[in-house]
Formats: sequence, C-alpha cells, structure tokens
Amino acid sequence: MPCTIEKETIEKTIEFHRHNCPGLTIGIRAAELAMERLDIHNAASPVCVAETDMCGVDAIQFLTGCSFGKGNLIHKDYGKSAFTFYDRDAQKGFRAVFNDFARNEQDRDNRIKRILAADLKDLFVIEDVDTPPVRPARILKSIQCDACREMTMESRIRLFDGKNLCIPCFQKVEQKI
Amino acid sequence: MPCTIEKETIEKTIEFHRHNCPGLTIGIRAAELAMERLDIHNAASPVCVAETDMCGVDAIQFLTGCSFGKGNLIHKDYGKSAFTFYDRDAQKGFRAVFNDFARNEQDRDNRIKRILAADLKDLFVIEDVDTPPVRPARILKSIQCDACREMTMESRIRLFDGKNLCIPCFQKVEQKI
Repeated sequence: MPCTIEKETIEKTIEFHRHNCPGLTIGIRAAELAMERLDIHNAASPVCVAETDMCGVDAIQFLTGCSFGKGNLIHKDYGKSAFTFYDRDAQKGFRAVFNDFARNEQDRDNRIKRILAADLKDLFVIEDVDTPPVRPARILKSIQCDACREMTMESRIRLFDGKNLCIPCFQKVEQKI
Repeated sequence: MPCTIEKETIEKTIEFHRHNCPGLTIGIRAAELAMERLDIHNAASPVCVAETDMCGVDAIQFLTGCSFGKGNLIHKDYGKSAFTFYDRDAQKGFRAVFNDFARNEQDRDNRIKRILAADLKDLFVIEDVDTPPVRPARILKSIQCDACREMTMESRIRLFDGKNLCIPCFQKVEQKI
C-alpha cells in the first residue's frame, strides 16, 4: 500500500526539514511503519535508535514523538539507514533497514514518488526487537566548572587535581601534563 | 524585551516537542537570540552546536532550520546549556550560555513565564565567534558490510582481515582476537 500519511502532514514534515528529498521520504515511510506497527506517535514512552544522521531522521522527529531534545532519539553513528523503534510500555519494537529501493532512479522527484508509492514491505528489511535498545533519558543536576565557571551537568564533570572541570577545560589541562 | 516570537509559533514548537517545560523555553529564547542577531532562520547555511541534548534543542530544531537530520545541528556532549550559532555565508556567529535564570523558582509554569518575560541579555552570557564551529555535512556513498551485508556509509566501514565491516560487525570480530 502507498504511504497512508496525510498530504498535509507530509507537507508540514517537509516544512520542518526545509526541503524535500528522497532521504526525508525514507524517514517518512520509516515513521509510518512505526506508527502502524507500534502506534508509536501515541505511545507514552517511545524511543528510536537511528543508525544514521541523514535527512530521514527529521521526518522521524516530526512524526513519531522521538526527538533529539526529548532524549528518546538516539544516534548510533554506524552510517546505516536503519531505525529501531521501541515502545517501553508495550515492551515491543522492531529494527527496520532501508533496502536502497529505487537506488538507480536518477530523477530525484521520481525517486521520492516511487518511495511514497511502494509497499512498506518492499522498502525495509524488518526484524522484531524484544528488549529496550537504550535506557530512558534522565535530568541530572548541574554544578560549576572550577575553571570556566560555566554550569555543567554533573555526569560530564571530570576531576583533576582536586578540581571539578567541564570536558573542554579538562582537555586543556590534560594536554599540558 | 519579552519574547518576540508569535504565540502561535510557540504553540507549534510545544506541539513538536509534545510538552511544555522550562527547558524548551530556554531553547525558544536561544533561537530568538539567533534569529535577532543572525537572521538564522533565513540563512542559507546556518549551523548550531548544542553542548546539551536537553529539551531546548527541540525548539532550536523547530525554529532555526538547524536540525539533526540536516546535519547542521551538532551535539557536543559537554552537559552545558550552551549554544553556538554560526552563519557560514555571513561568516559570523556567537556562543550563548544560559545563566540559570530563575533557577530557584519552584513553580514550573512560573519559571516558563519568567523566562519568556525576561530580556535576552538577562538570560544568556554571549560572546562572538568568528570561525565556523564545524565542517558542513556531506553525503557519502554507501558500501556493503561483508559480514551482515547491510549497506553502510563508506566512512563508517572498518577494515579487518581484508574485509569491509560495519562498526557493530567490526566490534564483534575485534573482541574475539
């Protein structure tokens, strides 16, 4: 079945990303897959692990409720068009790898159209995932760096010579040893 | 001057992030600062380096055109509420560090209101930046991992015993040595 996401929603997704492209379209279809299989956009505690930082990630952010600022979109820098979605409450999920559908289509607009028109099963290799891929995001307190005085999340402070240092200040003193 | 971003735009930002919170509001004001100083939302080649992955990053993604999927929102995991914006064409930018304004305000809604009502200069410590903080995003070709057969961005392939391996497959064989 072709893409079931409403045209207006797709247009808003393009507006968020600020241009249309095949990469974004791959993300739209991956988000649609997660909406169909997991109702991810209505899940209380959804998470997405993206193994790429390509354009499609913006569609996932806009459509699924998994976003970088919410801490439930995790980037693993593997350079693969692969997305793992997981619903912590339902304790189910899947990993989908885009199969490079229409890779030889030279015309950009045609590639977008073909990706939108395809069956989801013809776009992705899908396998179930039964354990959460990452721990939930947490908000930790901040303390001051003893060198630059900027407030820094406690877990990112490094200790050196009895001082609490943020990562850039720590790296400066460590290079001097 | 209080926040100059239109109420409707703020509401859409909250809708994108899926909840309202002081962290998001900090991001809204940081985005406003970049819009005022650099006209960042209209820049052809904007970039943001966020030293945090807290909620505010979603406001920056929604309002400035710097998003994770476009490759022009870079996360440096320093745990600081600090944002560097840069316009590559104008060759100018700044780094703004949130000064923990209204940190002792216990009521969440009041903290949001106070951050929205404050002057930008009372919220951030700002310094000019005159060199681009990161290189532009590039799209690289993909090749197949010789173990799992998944397509992988060339620069993320590791070589082992004459084979091209993706990072997870490389880590598996490396642990066996």
